[in-house]
Amino acid sequence: MGILVVGSIALDRVETPFGSREDALGGACTYFATAASLYAPVHMVGVVGTDFPQAHLDFFRSRQIDLRGVQIVPGKTFRWAGRYGQDLADAETLATELNVFGDFHPVIPDDLRRVPYVFLANIDPDLQIEILSQMANPRLAALDSMNYWMAHKRDSLAKAISKVHVVLLNESEVRLFSGEANLIAGARAILSLGPRALVIKRGEHGAMLILSGGSEANLFMVPAFPVEYVVDPTGAGDTFAAGFMGYLAKTGDLSEAGLRRAVVHGTLVASFTVQDFSIDRLRPLTLQDIEARYSAFRWMTHFEPLSDVDVNRLSRPILA
Amino acid sequence: MGILVVGSIALDRVETPFGSREDALGGACTYFATAASLYAPVHMVGVVGTDFPQAHLDFFRSRQIDLRGVQIVPGKTFRWAGRYGQDLADAETLATELNVFGDFHPVIPDDLRRVPYVFLANIDPDLQIEILSQMANPRLAALDSMNYWMAHKRDSLAKAISKVHVVLLNESEVRLFSGEANLIAGARAILSLGPRALVIKRGEHGAMLILSGGSEANLFMVPAFPVEYVVDPTGAGDTFAAGFMGYLAKTGDLSEAGLRRAVVHGTLVASFTVQDFSIDRLRPLTLQDIEARYSAFRWMTHFEPLSDVDVNRLSRPILA
Repeated sequence: MGILVVGSIALDRVETPFGSREDALGGACTYFATAASLYAPVHMVGVVGTDFPQAHLDFFRSRQIDLRGVQIVPGKTFRWAGRYGQDLADAETLATELNVFGDFHPVIPDDLRRVPYVFLANIDPDLQIEILSQMANPRLAALDSMNYWMAHKRDSLAKAISKVHVVLLNESEVRLFSGEANLIAGARAILSLGPRALVIKRGEHGAMLILSGGSEANLFMVPAFPVEYVVDPTGAGDTFAAGFMGYLAKTGDLSEAGLRRAVVHGTLVASFTVQDFSIDRLRPLTLQDIEARYSAFRWMTHFEPLSDVDVNRLSRPILA
Repeated sequence: MGILVVGSIALDRVETPFGSREDALGGACTYFATAASLYAPVHMVGVVGTDFPQAHLDFFRSRQIDLRGVQIVPGKTFRWAGRYGQDLADAETLATELNVFGDFHPVIPDDLRRVPYVFLANIDPDLQIEILSQMANPRLAALDSMNYWMAHKRDSLAKAISKVHVVLLNESEVRLFSGEANLIAGARAILSLGPRALVIKRGEHGAMLILSGGSEANLFMVPAFPVEYVVDPTGAGDTFAAGFMGYLAKTGDLSEAGLRRAVVHGTLVASFTVQDFSIDRLRPLTLQDIEARYSAFRWMTHFEPLSDVDVNRLSRPILA
């Protein structure tokens, strides 16, 4: 089933210890759509300027990505410049030029309002709410955000969070938004706003899935897939979301087992993304490549068979 | 089957953001023996001064720990003082008084030379070699070490490593000893010296097991068990080794599956250790407590049943 994604489409300047790129195709919507298109039909909603290279639009079309929701308006495309240090952790932002993205108000074309999977990439939470209000009862809506909105639009973000099924944040964002040093306590605070699940992205340390409700610790953890060299971490979080949403949209499995496997797919897709600049590692990537890494990852992480009781419990639907 | 452990027995002064302790029972041998005694008979080899409190010796005896290899000599017991910052990562060493430990030469009593499981805690690698030469072909010998010996006795340490089946190091030690920034490449370099397996302790980020040989990535990874508050990380590595060796000695299972479960036991025992100062959390700990955490951990980390092929492969003996 289809996935609608709203977010930035950008031209990036990126510096890492492995080199640098100018005018690289970037933006959360770009990364997400490119990776998610391996799993399911993707509908992009965003904006670019008239300077946006035709080759990039052609690339999206070559992935069967629906661009009817992408506005092309007079002016310059959103640009971001960032630099990563030797540890390849958080980027230092060198420049942000909103350009046409500054006045962006997403309008969802009528025939896309029933797309069942919706991913709200990191944008102004007021826009995230605007988009959700245009969608007809999605089967699964998820959002990402960042520290900027937590500091400047906390109430709007809390409202947006209360309207989605799944929230994806990184470790420091969970601590910042919740004010809790302990990650599990922070997760509980965010889940108390309404979402059914929180996915915590932990970079090279993997990811966690915390489900709301229940007296037990509804906690699932995976390490990151080990890659020999991280070349450029840009887009790791967006393509994590793409693997996660893509797996769910492809399988329709909204059980706990489905969500767990979706987290693994997120982890694995991100592990490919960071192995090259921009979306370059994703261009030749196939679902078979991801499945091969999935088998290797299962082998690397399991130490016991699951009991029948566990398997049954994992199979119960927990969303929709 | 029994485990012989050689290492420091100490009185520690520890400061953490949660408080401080004076004259706390510590030392690698102490931590290891206390935790491993939950799994199997433990034989301690070490040295204390005449100032060492009788109550501590009585405690060891209450755990059925064999103290025939512990020398009590005139002088003061080894003392260590350290401080942990807000992140509870590596300790800053404030003071080290070797005292009677400075002249320690371990002599293994005759009837302990056939103990089948041997753990060489972090001590001078020349002493580790001395001890191994006194042991009669142990079923499993493992060692720990630290950055000091890597800097000052590199050749001796390489020789000691070549004589054991399993090496346990933390992440930064693997990088330091191997000179490789990439952990897997560093692991390969260490395994090329002869050991069958390397366990990499990663603190709050879990642990890895890398086996030598084979064309596949013989890699197993677990996250750390999430604990709400880390009170004092001292002894986490030593009790990781205790859970690892204890599980193997108790079950005798030296298959890959056995080693993986042993890594999980190491992770879990360490997760208890850090929840209080000194060995205080280990005093009331039972195997049932560890098994309960083991079940929870399996639940938290698995996302697929293992195939029969995987289970068969994991069951093949890989040591002895």
